[in-house]
Amino acid sequence: MLDNYNLTMLTDYYEITMANGYYQSSVRDSEAVFDMFFRNVPDGGGFAIMAGVEQVIEYLKNLKFTDEDIEYLRSKNTFSEDFLEYLRNFKFTCDVWTVPEGKPIFPYEPIVTVKGPLIQAQFVETFILLTINHQSLIATKANRIVRSAQGRPIMEFGTRRAQGSSAAIYGARAAYIGGCAGTACAIADRDYGVAAMGTMAHSWVQTFDTEYDAFKAYAEIYPDNAVLLIDTYNVLKSGLPNAIRVFKELKPKKMGVRIDSGDIAYLTKKTRKILDENGLQDCSIVISNSLDEYLIRDVLLEGAQIDSFGVGERLITSKSEPVFGGVYKLAAIEKNGELIPKMKISENVEKITNPGLKHVYRLFDNETGKALADVITLEGEDRPESDGYEIFDEHAVWKKKRLKNFHAEDLMVQIFDKGKCVYESPSLNDIQNYCRDQIDTLWSETLRFENPQTYYVDLSKRLWTVKYDILNKYEG
Amino acid sequence: MLDNYNLTMLTDYYEITMANGYYQSSVRDSEAVFDMFFRNVPDGGGFAIMAGVEQVIEYLKNLKFTDEDIEYLRSKNTFSEDFLEYLRNFKFTCDVWTVPEGKPIFPYEPIVTVKGPLIQAQFVETFILLTINHQSLIATKANRIVRSAQGRPIMEFGTRRAQGSSAAIYGARAAYIGGCAGTACAIADRDYGVAAMGTMAHSWVQTFDTEYDAFKAYAEIYPDNAVLLIDTYNVLKSGLPNAIRVFKELKPKKMGVRIDSGDIAYLTKKTRKILDENGLQDCSIVISNSLDEYLIRDVLLEGAQIDSFGVGERLITSKSEPVFGGVYKLAAIEKNGELIPKMKISENVEKITNPGLKHVYRLFDNETGKALADVITLEGEDRPESDGYEIFDEHAVWKKKRLKNFHAEDLMVQIFDKGKCVYESPSLNDIQNYCRDQIDTLWSETLRFENPQTYYVDLSKRLWTVKYDILNKYEG
Repeated sequence: MLDNYNLTMLTDYYEITMANGYYQSSVRDSEAVFDMFFRNVPDGGGFAIMAGVEQVIEYLKNLKFTDEDIEYLRSKNTFSEDFLEYLRNFKFTCDVWTVPEGKPIFPYEPIVTVKGPLIQAQFVETFILLTINHQSLIATKANRIVRSAQGRPIMEFGTRRAQGSSAAIYGARAAYIGGCAGTACAIADRDYGVAAMGTMAHSWVQTFDTEYDAFKAYAEIYPDNAVLLIDTYNVLKSGLPNAIRVFKELKPKKMGVRIDSGDIAYLTKKTRKILDENGLQDCSIVISNSLDEYLIRDVLLEGAQIDSFGVGERLITSKSEPVFGGVYKLAAIEKNGELIPKMKISENVEKITNPGLKHVYRLFDNETGKALADVITLEGEDRPESDGYEIFDEHAVWKKKRLKNFHAEDLMVQIFDKGKCVYESPSLNDIQNYCRDQIDTLWSETLRFENPQTYYVDLSKRLWTVKYDILNKYEG
Repeated sequence: MLDNYNLTMLTDYYEITMANGYYQSSVRDSEAVFDMFFRNVPDGGGFAIMAGVEQVIEYLKNLKFTDEDIEYLRSKNTFSEDFLEYLRNFKFTCDVWTVPEGKPIFPYEPIVTVKGPLIQAQFVETFILLTINHQSLIATKANRIVRSAQGRPIMEFGTRRAQGSSAAIYGARAAYIGGCAGTACAIADRDYGVAAMGTMAHSWVQTFDTEYDAFKAYAEIYPDNAVLLIDTYNVLKSGLPNAIRVFKELKPKKMGVRIDSGDIAYLTKKTRKILDENGLQDCSIVISNSLDEYLIRDVLLEGAQIDSFGVGERLITSKSEPVFGGVYKLAAIEKNGELIPKMKISENVEKITNPGLKHVYRLFDNETGKALADVITLEGEDRPESDGYEIFDEHAVWKKKRLKNFHAEDLMVQIFDKGKCVYESPSLNDIQNYCRDQIDTLWSETLRFENPQTYYVDLSKRLWTVKYDILNKYEG
């Protein structure tokens, strides 16, 4: 597993300069609270999907500075020996909460919260961001593509275009969480149980003297999965007739044709018709040519005859928006035994953060089961009660809404308690199912690809008051 | 190192179904030739930069199927036992040539060639593509950004937005090849010698009671590198005055201010003026807010006063074009002891490949030292001679040009000879220098960011004849 490679030092260098700095200064033993959140849903969508928690857990469990790390840091002539000694004995003792994998998440709500000694809580920033940003990005994109296919399976076929090995492997994992049926990536199957799929490349067809020979050889060896790539020369003039000939001669148990180029709508309609005329109604049609959610939606609207899709580079890199911009911000710092709420105050209103140690609830309508709103409260506030709870827009406080007949669920679960892992990651299949079920709690207006309805993420009155008191005090 | 994790199975599943298929069929012992090439330069640029060879070498050196791999494959109930036994004894025995890292590369020319037993040469496709695609993408993007800064250092600061761990680590490596001065990523420094840099986040500033306290604490601990982040509250009203106060009080050896938000041109001009008025001409200004080559070019044109840049997500993901579309295609297959040229024939003219085992030359003008053209020949053809060599456009053969007074260099080097590594990767610094020198051999018209002059990549007459004979024969 990639986890055998100790990734403790996969961190921004400034985490280490700050750690040494904190260690040398008065705040050395302070407790701190940090939140990860994001500001925009990729592709202008209505929600994102949380993913990557299992890898964060592995990282935190294995946090330790090896002799090699210490040696490297010493070579920088920047860090004090007592700090290096501190790192040598480093032990992670924070509390950590995260949204469970597969759950829909929305801008500005905490999706990871870390509370504990300042140096530790700061240090883990980079890896948490890197991992959650990457996997949430891919899970979110995959889910858009999966939804566009209206029940037809999507295979993640992007390994060769992924941005490096872990992008291929954990991208396959995240895509599966988002609803993909499988991956091209064999190692993701071996290590994470993401079913690997695939049959042949053009080179298989070219290797044999004729296309017919190539198809025949394949169907003889793999009668249980004879999916033949029919566009090496010409789909309708050559590939399809050769495939049909082989299917009729060998009658493989599972028959399919894959088309990797050309006009999808035209070719698949033609192909379906010809297959059916030849009594090959059971033969499936697989498409795999630079697809994304928009192309899939459009060709299906055009009546393309497709049973499943292989989606490559546009999924594995989230090509249309390859960055999930999660950030990790200080929310509180201990002073004289008390947690002081902290926030980033910016000229940019959308860059202002929410202060304090918080607790987030998702409110579900008891009648429809649909999610109504997320409410960010300060830790210790009462759970929103079903007999009437008023939510309001933070930036337009006169816009109020009174909710009744709902129940409130915690958005996050605790995964570390004073450095001890207290959470067991569900199986990948369970996460995939959970993701599907949770998305079912969203209104269709939120699921729209373009211009979705903005889901409510509101502050409790108490949190709002604390936040705006700080802002007023700062401006005053 | 990531290389401790055996990545043999980081492969598309179809490489394995094909391998088993080849093994069961008549072509089992054939020799084959595959080429990697790409069709488009990212971002519409005039050239790309080769990177990732060192990691390909590591992969090929470590190719072996472990018991765990065999067990996994057996569990698929798809592969024959004799094939699994073959994998258990698998030994890589191919010849491999690649363009050396750091060299400019152009569409349609081979940048990797693998020649050897069909099963082996096919199997390594996925990892070669994945690795070269990723690192060449980032090296190419980094180089655009580096060139836009006109000599000012670029730091790669994208770790937290990279698509997974290896995207962060090898992205830092590739960015360095493309000319970056350093990275945020500590582990890339420890393992690959890419200098890691960074001082403080906003949380450092927020942790202390006042911004002044935070700056003072930092400058006391790090007098050799007191780069202070001055935009946590307000650059001009708060950050800059506090920084100046600390600089005057403590007189750190190296002073700098970093601005991470707001209008770069306006703020840096103001900041420079105020610093200078305070006698702090030595204080440098670092900028790090969602930058890329276009923004950097534009703010410098506006007269922004910037000494160096930290560039994050738009570099580490190559956000504007996050896919380098390299492909790996069969070029020849042995039949009865003879290598038969093969090509993919497509309705799409640009998807037609170049057949045969080839040799590529880059021709340099003896007077200017500039690169004139790349010429793809068939293996065994004479080296282009300086006393007059005619090149022509493959798709417009009447467009001819006679070159004189040049010398021809091999584009590729051999890295494996019958499975034995025969190449030692240069140091990363040497690769970076080589890259810079090689880019100096390109005309400025090719370096342009938009609508660059297309560099000549031509076929020798003999290769052209072989290719068009096959096409004519196929159409006939």
